[in-house]
Amino acid sequence: MTYCVAICLDAGIVFCSDSRTNAGVDQISTYSKMHCFGVDGQRQFVILSAGNLATTQGVIAKIKKDIKDEAGQNLFNISSIEEAADYLGEANLAQQNKHAPVKGTSYEASFIIGGQIAGSKPKIALVYAQGNHIVSSDSTPYLQIGESKYGKPILDRILTTDTTLETASLCALVSMDSTMRSNLTVGPPIELQVYTANSLSLNRYHRFEEDSEYLRNLHRAWNSHLIDAFRSLPPLNWSFTWDRSLDEQSGS
Amino acid sequence: MTYCVAICLDAGIVFCSDSRTNAGVDQISTYSKMHCFGVDGQRQFVILSAGNLATTQGVIAKIKKDIKDEAGQNLFNISSIEEAADYLGEANLAQQNKHAPVKGTSYEASFIIGGQIAGSKPKIALVYAQGNHIVSSDSTPYLQIGESKYGKPILDRILTTDTTLETASLCALVSMDSTMRSNLTVGPPIELQVYTANSLSLNRYHRFEEDSEYLRNLHRAWNSHLIDAFRSLPPLNWSFTWDRSLDEQSGS
Repeated sequence: MTYCVAICLDAGIVFCSDSRTNAGVDQISTYSKMHCFGVDGQRQFVILSAGNLATTQGVIAKIKKDIKDEAGQNLFNISSIEEAADYLGEANLAQQNKHAPVKGTSYEASFIIGGQIAGSKPKIALVYAQGNHIVSSDSTPYLQIGESKYGKPILDRILTTDTTLETASLCALVSMDSTMRSNLTVGPPIELQVYTANSLSLNRYHRFEEDSEYLRNLHRAWNSHLIDAFRSLPPLNWSFTWDRSLDEQSGS
Repeated sequence: MTYCVAICLDAGIVFCSDSRTNAGVDQISTYSKMHCFGVDGQRQFVILSAGNLATTQGVIAKIKKDIKDEAGQNLFNISSIEEAADYLGEANLAQQNKHAPVKGTSYEASFIIGGQIAGSKPKIALVYAQGNHIVSSDSTPYLQIGESKYGKPILDRILTTDTTLETASLCALVSMDSTMRSNLTVGPPIELQVYTANSLSLNRYHRFEEDSEYLRNLHRAWNSHLIDAFRSLPPLNWSFTWDRSLDEQSGS
């Protein structure tokens, strides 16, 4: 499994991804799921990937080849993030269909692509296994792929488009921490890429290793703060009217 | 969808369930998913149900009928919670198999059964759609059915077997609140049943209605406490070594 999240703010974009790849619990490896493409001062893209590793590697290889070959359509001449998402969706489908005939095996993959092209605003899009895509909105400024449920509540509670890059980065790491705590197949190294709007360059990248003291402290602090938050809730009012259940079957 | 949780503690058992049933988002109804059976002073069972409504209703009807008919095996003569879970598993499979031939339709259901029989300890068991079951353990004193992911983290952080019934009840309601916030198909009324160990009677039941002021206050308090918990985290250290990503494709 995988967990990747991208957050699109007025101030820029935060990308965060884990690096654990598994085929069963006894075949675990580390692969980066964050891929960067850009021309400084002109355009920057970050792609996060989830799903079948052969598919995602095939898609990324195709993107690189198209850039190298200066293909008619490639990330360095495409005119918008939406167009890039369509291009990525086609590459995704083509790669999956290469292997489709084997029944009962899924080669599905999904992607988040985000970034900025000079003259346009920063944007993020989620490309589904089916090849279509959605973009984020002002009311939901983030997109997730992979194991998204455990880490979703904190994003919903904290993020708005005017959240700072610092706060959103912290929020992404807390979201990642909650996911790692509950799902064994999501794990470090954790990669964080922070893109500042209109900078048209990527220069804030950090990789938190397995033994990262920062991640360990964040894990401990978040756990103890959550327990404190729970302990300070008003206690359950035991003076409720307590009844017997309506749907009750009693013996004599 | 559904969310039900049962927590087995030294002090007794807490059961909590939502009441929303849906077949698509425009066919939503309210059905209790909590069913109680018992003979005061001798034995008490609470059953929580998730999955296909026709299956769960069929299973509960069969349990009631067996009690009424004083069948060879019924909840009022069964000798342990494990045996009750096996009996429930068989009834579950039988009910599902009645309709199995229609391809592509799932009649699956799962259950939690918990309670106490005089002379034994309180216990909870989760009965899978396949008919088999697991019981809770000292290190994982709770069981969930339905949409379990959103509400799991808080249970993991708070519960141990020596948690009080009051704290565990509050924890179950917070877990339910997180689930309702993230999944539209889980909703009130919320039923809470608190069984005190060795009481062999069920007399602490409360149903929180849609407009429950308590639930609304809990929702608000938990949200603001979580935001405070997040705000008080140590800020991200922007003095990290920030690099360019390793896997980066740059234009000239």
